[in-house]
Amino acid sequence: MTRPLRVALLGCGVVGSSVVRLLNEQSTDLEHRIGVPVEVAGIAVRRPALRREVDVDPALLTTDAHALVTRDDVDIVVEVIGGIEPARSLLLAAFGAGKPVVTANKALLATDGATIHDAAAAAGVDLYFEASVAGGIPLLRPLKESLAGERISKVLGIVNGTTNFILTRMDETGAGFAEALDEATALGYAEADPSADIEGFDAAAKAAILASIAFHSRVTVADVHREGIVDVTAADIASAKAMGRTVKLLAICERSASGVSVRVHPAMIPLTHPLASVRDAFNAVFVEGDSVGQLMFYGRGAGGLPTASAVLGDVVAVARNLRSGSRGAGESSYASLTPLPMGDVRTSYHVNLDVADKAGVLAAVATAFADNDVSIGTVRQEGHGDDATLVLVTHTAADEALRRTVEVLRSLDAVRAVTSVMRVEG
Amino acid sequence: MTRPLRVALLGCGVVGSSVVRLLNEQSTDLEHRIGVPVEVAGIAVRRPALRREVDVDPALLTTDAHALVTRDDVDIVVEVIGGIEPARSLLLAAFGAGKPVVTANKALLATDGATIHDAAAAAGVDLYFEASVAGGIPLLRPLKESLAGERISKVLGIVNGTTNFILTRMDETGAGFAEALDEATALGYAEADPSADIEGFDAAAKAAILASIAFHSRVTVADVHREGIVDVTAADIASAKAMGRTVKLLAICERSASGVSVRVHPAMIPLTHPLASVRDAFNAVFVEGDSVGQLMFYGRGAGGLPTASAVLGDVVAVARNLRSGSRGAGESSYASLTPLPMGDVRTSYHVNLDVADKAGVLAAVATAFADNDVSIGTVRQEGHGDDATLVLVTHTAADEALRRTVEVLRSLDAVRAVTSVMRVEG
Repeated sequence: MTRPLRVALLGCGVVGSSVVRLLNEQSTDLEHRIGVPVEVAGIAVRRPALRREVDVDPALLTTDAHALVTRDDVDIVVEVIGGIEPARSLLLAAFGAGKPVVTANKALLATDGATIHDAAAAAGVDLYFEASVAGGIPLLRPLKESLAGERISKVLGIVNGTTNFILTRMDETGAGFAEALDEATALGYAEADPSADIEGFDAAAKAAILASIAFHSRVTVADVHREGIVDVTAADIASAKAMGRTVKLLAICERSASGVSVRVHPAMIPLTHPLASVRDAFNAVFVEGDSVGQLMFYGRGAGGLPTASAVLGDVVAVARNLRSGSRGAGESSYASLTPLPMGDVRTSYHVNLDVADKAGVLAAVATAFADNDVSIGTVRQEGHGDDATLVLVTHTAADEALRRTVEVLRSLDAVRAVTSVMRVEG
Repeated sequence: MTRPLRVALLGCGVVGSSVVRLLNEQSTDLEHRIGVPVEVAGIAVRRPALRREVDVDPALLTTDAHALVTRDDVDIVVEVIGGIEPARSLLLAAFGAGKPVVTANKALLATDGATIHDAAAAAGVDLYFEASVAGGIPLLRPLKESLAGERISKVLGIVNGTTNFILTRMDETGAGFAEALDEATALGYAEADPSADIEGFDAAAKAAILASIAFHSRVTVADVHREGIVDVTAADIASAKAMGRTVKLLAICERSASGVSVRVHPAMIPLTHPLASVRDAFNAVFVEGDSVGQLMFYGRGAGGLPTASAVLGDVVAVARNLRSGSRGAGESSYASLTPLPMGDVRTSYHVNLDVADKAGVLAAVATAFADNDVSIGTVRQEGHGDDATLVLVTHTAADEALRRTVEVLRSLDAVRAVTSVMRVEG
């Protein structure tokens, strides 16, 4: 193949505009790296008249995305629309027409990845999706390709910049959640409707994709236990600080003898953990492997240009494969590990209790833990008289046992209030 | 290709033994990931009778490495001997026989990479070398493949675990270099002859490889300005600390309008820089790209198992390529950027001077800087009377101008001693 490679772009918002800009700006480099020039064959948009962040030849714009992806002069389809439909139908149409796809669509892959992967495999064409998780950070291909000789045991990541910005501000200023969210919105870090971020949906989709790759299994967003950060309080953050910890929203994928647990929830991690210093809207993903030990990948997880950079890296890979008549590594799901329910996950809790400072309180509290087979790691009592606070950190136990213990604690006469309950990781 | 893939292993030391161990332990996973089993066809060693860290079928051992790499039943050659010869001749023989190669050999690639890359290209076979830089950290393939759509401006890395361990101990305990080196030797972090590490040769080879990939140019170790850590003193570390900085041995690859500068030297970086918290024998590489912004890759840069993990990842890639009749991305050197001499590099200096605390000293010192066109960023005076110390940090200037300035300072009557001179990065 010596003629130019032609890309159909679906979507021309923040990421799409950046893809167009980079394709133009780096055309010489891209031609050297691929061996032939890359051209934009067409751009499917809903509103052609909309003013965009990049100059686009109006002749390239079309509202008929379906016609574009199946056009004979299109070699590669790049999808940056997001969401389930019409993205899914368009990808299936592209595969049906034998076109390889580069996509940034985490929601689609995490919700109905099987359909998409199967269609790519049936068509015998590439499906690349580096941009779907952690934006510009090279992560999915390193996991899939560089670490192909590794047995990965755990992936622990900060994969949502909005929530990390909010938690960073709460940690730095002592602000409550609502106040920090307002600041994030004002600065453009949170969208007008922030629920996908703050309720953990975005991170859960990414966790499903990460787990699928790391463990060679099919994990969907329905398998992911999800808790957002809306209930994280200034008191939680202060309590973490007092223990030399900080609070992060973590995506956690863990392999055990019985299957994989995949979950998204806020957790306290020690300040000495490499993820603790990941601040503001940065992302970082920690990977543990049996041979390689601990790895971390750090960078900007969102934004037009970083995400477009990941898309372009995938375009170069697909283009090289097309030219050599080969395909990259497809989906690998041979291990078929079982997703475990959250209740079975082994975890550890940090619990703050407001208690009366009188004889027997600690005994009553300790009994509640013991009755549920949860072993206490450390107890610290702060204050005296009416204002006593007990801070307990448990050893690891089944999450369900910890949940039940906290329920019992809430019902104890000696406990005035359970003021903070949070899992501990790292 | 449905028959097993057969690997010839050259070398069975720490890394080679780990490769054999992982090939055995992970045979089922590897078969799933490649599609066919992987077998060891033979292992070339110098002393077959030597006791090894892994059980090896004695029938596999041979002292005739040359015969092994050209054997008809060998599909992939894995070289973990290290050094220039006989590694180079063996790789050339392998390419001559049409065999793809996976190697961990940084010295060979950094010294005579052109010969090796050209031979691989001429033979039309793969050459993978992830393990040559930063051990188990996925770094070279992400740079080459995931970041193929990126214009990289800078690579800044801690790529030598021994020196990072020594500098970490100096920072933590206030020890001098000799004392910290003794500790590193006792703990097995430094070799009996530590010169390759402490004089920066190892880091310089890695810097050349990183620069070649990041900038699509041929950079050899001869192009790398190299300074080790043998002259770093406890006073340097203390002075860095007083300024909120720490000292690291950095491999720095930087693109400018006129070319690339590639260098290895100790430098002060702010404690807030992500590389500052990389302690002990860990490695981390910071990458800056025009679109993607700042990325960091972190993990264990050495050791048998982490390095073997990188080798295995490459073996899987080469094996997949063989099965699909394709090749991975080969060497890319189209940009052919010119390596710049160190004197032209723009950098900034931290300078400590013992001075007499009398009128005119600062004026004399300031004149020395001004005469050489070096602008002073900050000056701090500590102590009074006979023990006054001036701490100066310059703005960026040509390295040659800074070097000349320090020479003049040493000759000034007002300056009793130049107690610390170190570049500042980050």
